[in-house]
Amino acid sequence: MTRYVYPFAEGDGRNRALLGGKGAGLAEMSRIGLPVPPGFTITTEASIAAQALGGFPDGMMDQVWEALERLETTAGKRLGDAARPLLVSVRSGAPVSMPGMMDTVLNLGLNQTVLEGLARLTKNRRFALDSYRRFIQMFGNVVMRMEHNRFEEILEQVKSQAQVAIDTELSEERLEQIIDRYLALVASATGRPFPSDPREQLTMAIQAVFESWKNPRAVVYRRLNKIADTLGTAVNVQSMVFGNMGNTSATGVLFTRNPNTGEPGMYGEYLTNAQGEDVVAGIRTPKSMDLMIAEMPSTHRQLTEVCALLERHYHDMQDIEFTVERETLYLLQTRAGKRTARAAVKIAVDMAHEGLIAKHEALLRVDPDQVARLLYRQVDPAAEVTVLAQGLPASPGAAAGQVVFTADEAERRGNQGQAVILVRPETTPDDIHGMVAAQGVLTSRGGMTSHAAIVARGMGKPAVTGCEAVRINLEQEYFVVEGTRIDRDAVITIDGATGRVIIGPVPTIEPSLSAEFTELLEWADETKRLGVEANADTPEDAGKAREFGARGIGLCRTEHMFMGQDRLPVMQEMILAETVDERREALQKLLPMQQADFYGILKAMDGFAVTIRLLDPPLHEFLPDISETQTLLARARAANQAEDIRRLDAVLRRTRALYEFNPMLGFRGVRLGIVYPEIYAMQARAIFQAQAALLGEGYHPAVEVMIPLVGIPAELEAMRDLVATTNQAVRVETGQALPYHIGTMIEVPRAALVAGTIAQAAEFFSFGTNDLTQTTFGFSRDDAESKFLPAYLADKILPENPFMVLDREGVGRLIEVAVADGRAVRPGLRVGICGEHGGEPSSIEFCHRIGLDYVSCSPYRVPVARLSAAQAALREVNEK
Amino acid sequence: MTRYVYPFAEGDGRNRALLGGKGAGLAEMSRIGLPVPPGFTITTEASIAAQALGGFPDGMMDQVWEALERLETTAGKRLGDAARPLLVSVRSGAPVSMPGMMDTVLNLGLNQTVLEGLARLTKNRRFALDSYRRFIQMFGNVVMRMEHNRFEEILEQVKSQAQVAIDTELSEERLEQIIDRYLALVASATGRPFPSDPREQLTMAIQAVFESWKNPRAVVYRRLNKIADTLGTAVNVQSMVFGNMGNTSATGVLFTRNPNTGEPGMYGEYLTNAQGEDVVAGIRTPKSMDLMIAEMPSTHRQLTEVCALLERHYHDMQDIEFTVERETLYLLQTRAGKRTARAAVKIAVDMAHEGLIAKHEALLRVDPDQVARLLYRQVDPAAEVTVLAQGLPASPGAAAGQVVFTADEAERRGNQGQAVILVRPETTPDDIHGMVAAQGVLTSRGGMTSHAAIVARGMGKPAVTGCEAVRINLEQEYFVVEGTRIDRDAVITIDGATGRVIIGPVPTIEPSLSAEFTELLEWADETKRLGVEANADTPEDAGKAREFGARGIGLCRTEHMFMGQDRLPVMQEMILAETVDERREALQKLLPMQQADFYGILKAMDGFAVTIRLLDPPLHEFLPDISETQTLLARARAANQAEDIRRLDAVLRRTRALYEFNPMLGFRGVRLGIVYPEIYAMQARAIFQAQAALLGEGYHPAVEVMIPLVGIPAELEAMRDLVATTNQAVRVETGQALPYHIGTMIEVPRAALVAGTIAQAAEFFSFGTNDLTQTTFGFSRDDAESKFLPAYLADKILPENPFMVLDREGVGRLIEVAVADGRAVRPGLRVGICGEHGGEPSSIEFCHRIGLDYVSCSPYRVPVARLSAAQAALREVNEK
Repeated sequence: MTRYVYPFAEGDGRNRALLGGKGAGLAEMSRIGLPVPPGFTITTEASIAAQALGGFPDGMMDQVWEALERLETTAGKRLGDAARPLLVSVRSGAPVSMPGMMDTVLNLGLNQTVLEGLARLTKNRRFALDSYRRFIQMFGNVVMRMEHNRFEEILEQVKSQAQVAIDTELSEERLEQIIDRYLALVASATGRPFPSDPREQLTMAIQAVFESWKNPRAVVYRRLNKIADTLGTAVNVQSMVFGNMGNTSATGVLFTRNPNTGEPGMYGEYLTNAQGEDVVAGIRTPKSMDLMIAEMPSTHRQLTEVCALLERHYHDMQDIEFTVERETLYLLQTRAGKRTARAAVKIAVDMAHEGLIAKHEALLRVDPDQVARLLYRQVDPAAEVTVLAQGLPASPGAAAGQVVFTADEAERRGNQGQAVILVRPETTPDDIHGMVAAQGVLTSRGGMTSHAAIVARGMGKPAVTGCEAVRINLEQEYFVVEGTRIDRDAVITIDGATGRVIIGPVPTIEPSLSAEFTELLEWADETKRLGVEANADTPEDAGKAREFGARGIGLCRTEHMFMGQDRLPVMQEMILAETVDERREALQKLLPMQQADFYGILKAMDGFAVTIRLLDPPLHEFLPDISETQTLLARARAANQAEDIRRLDAVLRRTRALYEFNPMLGFRGVRLGIVYPEIYAMQARAIFQAQAALLGEGYHPAVEVMIPLVGIPAELEAMRDLVATTNQAVRVETGQALPYHIGTMIEVPRAALVAGTIAQAAEFFSFGTNDLTQTTFGFSRDDAESKFLPAYLADKILPENPFMVLDREGVGRLIEVAVADGRAVRPGLRVGICGEHGGEPSSIEFCHRIGLDYVSCSPYRVPVARLSAAQAALREVNEK
Repeated sequence: MTRYVYPFAEGDGRNRALLGGKGAGLAEMSRIGLPVPPGFTITTEASIAAQALGGFPDGMMDQVWEALERLETTAGKRLGDAARPLLVSVRSGAPVSMPGMMDTVLNLGLNQTVLEGLARLTKNRRFALDSYRRFIQMFGNVVMRMEHNRFEEILEQVKSQAQVAIDTELSEERLEQIIDRYLALVASATGRPFPSDPREQLTMAIQAVFESWKNPRAVVYRRLNKIADTLGTAVNVQSMVFGNMGNTSATGVLFTRNPNTGEPGMYGEYLTNAQGEDVVAGIRTPKSMDLMIAEMPSTHRQLTEVCALLERHYHDMQDIEFTVERETLYLLQTRAGKRTARAAVKIAVDMAHEGLIAKHEALLRVDPDQVARLLYRQVDPAAEVTVLAQGLPASPGAAAGQVVFTADEAERRGNQGQAVILVRPETTPDDIHGMVAAQGVLTSRGGMTSHAAIVARGMGKPAVTGCEAVRINLEQEYFVVEGTRIDRDAVITIDGATGRVIIGPVPTIEPSLSAEFTELLEWADETKRLGVEANADTPEDAGKAREFGARGIGLCRTEHMFMGQDRLPVMQEMILAETVDERREALQKLLPMQQADFYGILKAMDGFAVTIRLLDPPLHEFLPDISETQTLLARARAANQAEDIRRLDAVLRRTRALYEFNPMLGFRGVRLGIVYPEIYAMQARAIFQAQAALLGEGYHPAVEVMIPLVGIPAELEAMRDLVATTNQAVRVETGQALPYHIGTMIEVPRAALVAGTIAQAAEFFSFGTNDLTQTTFGFSRDDAESKFLPAYLADKILPENPFMVLDREGVGRLIEVAVADGRAVRPGLRVGICGEHGGEPSSIEFCHRIGLDYVSCSPYRVPVARLSAAQAALREVNEK
């Protein structure tokens, strides 16, 4: 005979799958001797069986009655006994918390007779009547499936007749009147009288809670939260206790530590002479726990002990519900308390210091994705804000500033120290100088991986993208959201963590690494095996990355360096060159600029490896828009400006020649280096000259040269030779030994497939998982996110967005092949990833498992990566 | 002691690597008793050693002198002996034919003394003098490195003094004068006298021939023809014979069969009393071999026997050089004769019938790429043509017609039976109806894999693309090539096999499968293991494919079906639909059209599998160009046409919404099916309704439904269920059993990487190697071919264009992984390829080797594929 029912004292408090979260907590508290109102749990197995059978499984109700009898004996009360009435609550309790999703019935056991007994016993007929009224309404709604409104209508009518505004003002007579009308309503609406037999009530309530597992909001909640439909829910039947039996009674909720800050000490609220509902109703203001020291000193002492006991038992901060019935404390629930990121870190570190948990356990307690938010400026949660529109939370952080509509203006005013928000339909590489200077970016188009989103995340700059309610008029420089017009220079705040666009400036909270967080990350570094480096393109980013604990730069892009206002014209000159000599001349002008860039970055990361990727994007990204040039050309023609016509015509011709059908798969990366070796040669020279200068000043620059987009071994071999020749030349010129390593990004599938051969020329592999994901899936990120990926995720064709979470089956398999083949040829091959996945916890775990050497991510994700890498190492050990 | 020198009679005629082609042929002919002037071969090893040492290897010249003595004994003449003068030729002979690339010295052994002896012996002093004159000139140029012109100047001066026009009119005195001046020139120019010692002459000549391996034109030739620099050349020293010793002497060249048609019987030319040079000089007209029957009957008989003997010996058609010296026949060279594709087929089949070679050998004798040309109409090689411009040979075949500049006009006039050539800057899917109706296509832009090229090849329609000299004025409908203006309606001819654009109509040769070719392909079918199917989208193409021997359709694209003038508007209506209902309504109109398409194709391929790919291209391909719509919209606004404005505005909005950054990686293939399942459902219904109709008429339609661009197993599962549901519905409606198979194209890397899971839902895999190559390399074909692939091929970064020849290391590895993983899950999984590689011999061989079941290619490549598949099977057997 399957056992379906467990009295709290007999249940296994660790078996949440069988007893549900609430049932397990009650069992556990009972077991360790805490004061829990007696009761029993009907298992999830019973509910699963009931779903399958369409009715209770054999023997279940027999076990319920048996448990009820034992409960009655323990409580010294009996269900339906007017002299010693037992009232019970019937509550759902799934293995995974689904707050408010399923049904609850309170005060079960009341009928006309018991009501009178309760009135006598409590000496409070009004309380008894109100309890009965509430029970009929709750039972009618939850169990008998009647609309809530039909009861409310009656209540409102009577209140209106009685000319009272709130329920508590109703007289006993009026309550009796309501009860009569309720009972009549139930009988007429359902065709059967309201059940007066408490056992029938209980049977029906259990069945209703079972069925609430399938109610639409529970189904939707499970889908959204990826909870399996097959878990089922347990049902807890528990003796009611009452906090509203006078001033020696109370009810409250508390956390064992402050859930916002993590500070130690009880944190919560209570109300004397009240029930749980009253706390929620907000009619009376609950009191802070501190007041209890004076008001109910013994209860406070008792609760302090209970909290310590629970934390020692659960090794975690708890969220408790309690009721005091005539000075007797009862615990109704305990569960791990939800907490802010800040609190999570402090609690974990404090508990480790207190000896409650080990350091390793502390590391596992903190959700890396959650702490990521600590690294960005946040809108103060306490602030009152007027939300204008809601876009996508593209890059976390809050920023306020005056609205501007062009990158040039953003740059000009940003450089003058003004705070501006750049608002564009979407951004392109032409806008980067403006993005750099702005406090944040708002776009009306583009997804989580649009240009604006990716670049902003890379810069650690707040961005809200795809905010379609924003209708921008670029010409007249304003935007409109449903009738509200925001002109240039108006101040808005964007919250990149939530996607909100807010009118006016709002208070924000500064980000910082708290002492506890710093300590936790030190423990992480002692634990992890993976190296953590950063993607950084400027000395400032490199400094920030270092501050956050990056040990090197895994990806230093060199293209953003050409986007500055002083450089873009020279870069364009280089691209427009019609002969190799002209191109060399332009490159000669870029050389000192690049050298200064590399000097700064190598210096900022002194002593750690800096992996510099040579030019990657297609050249047309540096040229102006075709239609823009056409307009300028038309203007020049009208004004008959021969020189301008000639120049613009050349620009137009070159831009058209460089036009590509699929730029993602086009003339970029090493392909530029093969066709225009003089470009890569200039970059290599700039690197080595910077290295030589730093060595001369006593620094320790560690240079790694990375060739992008290699798919054919001969591509890398040709560039390796070019870089070696340049290195040799600078060695001779400077008389310095200039050691370096050369490697490649693996970002097209072919590179992974021929990695064995590539490794003969490469000293390191860096998996560029953004592009590798695009080419492996055949997904253009920009197009996929706006066209079909949303449908794919909604229809569960894909479990995750593969641009966020590394695809293990496809992309991951390629990475594993490449690592194995590469290391077979070159055992010391250094391998890592430098896509956005390098800062995503699940992807970092995969990198750890397949034995990569490092991950590289944006500076602001470095702490996340350090923590994730430690967790990956710990989980692997735990599995063994 | 390494042996460096082999008398012809001792050499191994099969060892071309050691003796070179010519040396091996001479050795072989000597060995089988044919009359070869005696001589010996200095090996390629000697030349390789000499390159390395910078001088002859030890002992080589000793061996030469020893061989020379034996030659002298055999010939009964001695080098430098005036009484019995031996003259020799010194010729290069590489293992691989490099015609005219290296040096030759004839008549070596002459000096003043020998000259007189020769004059006496031949009783022809003029001949002896002329031989000496030529020897000095040739030796001076080839061996002593003097410019040819300096000798020619003297010759011209003397001729001018003598007032004669041609060399043969020079008197003996004048020749003596020339010889004296030549000798003086050599002495003054080189600072040393012309060597009179024949042994010194021979030593110097051998060295010169060795060195000619490294001359610039030989180096370039080897690079162009992919001949290894390390092979080296042999040197043949051979006794001279003279065909110019009167009317019983002659010289000639012949093929053992007709090299143009393959007809049996000697085919060649000869001249009596002449030397080889005279045939080339063209002063006298050579005689056809037929005339020899009367003129030199015994020689003719002897040659007939020699030809038969050589063919029996070499089992191949030979190209022979011969000389008759005073009625004695000498063979100077034999080698496999070059031949046209037509001749190659006939000779191979005839020889198999004659028992000279086995059928398997016949199959290996024919180059599949070469016979491909037999399947297209060709410009008559004999015709005189005026070439206007040269473009890329994008799709073979010749076509003549009147020039038109729009697809609509091409369609209109083509449908009226007029022959037109569609001339466009480039083509788009909007032009397909015009391409169908035109005789051929000429574009000024786009490479070998531009839209025009790919579509034309698919249709088997001649096309010349990327013809940049053609400057098109679309508005006034003419084009100009360097000043020549071609107006609409002028007739031009394009030759897609060579890329020529020719003024006016020119005679063309009809393609046909000759009886021999048909027979050869039957042998191929008996031999091959791979199935050969065709890519065909229309009943006409299906019929053509069947005629060429395709056993099924491996790829039936369904998108071209929507491009017809009657259908495109309905397709656009479907795309512009704003609700599912509107879309369904438009699809309802397309349904009968699609059904008719499938009915026709299934009927044409009755009994063989027809693999129908559901809609693949991005929807924006069916919408008009954005700027075109903008223009129309501006016009409609100006005219205030409300209805047009509304419609065009909707078109514009939708076109913009469908705009993609990388359409190749965008919203296409199964992604359409997931987001708009109603489209695929309509197509599936059309297929099954067509199938039901055909079954009702007694046909045997074999339906395979192919889902494109799958990369995620759930994509295929969803579409499999959709197709199954539709099939079930049509079964019920028609009461017919409607068997079918479902499978997918593997065309993104991820599909190959998760093929094991995909195979659970797929009954067949078809590798779409065009797209798989693009995604594996990260190459957009359109961009790569115009931007960087030419440089990659020139710099040998890639050995071949991977869009032409399947990349085995990368793409091939993915295919192998997918086949292995797929078959592990589903042992009966049917696998094939349907990219353009399916018609390319080397790729077909790879498909055979890795165990694919079939290849599918354009109808016109089917014979090529059949032959290639047979050769692959034979080569595999031969290796074992």
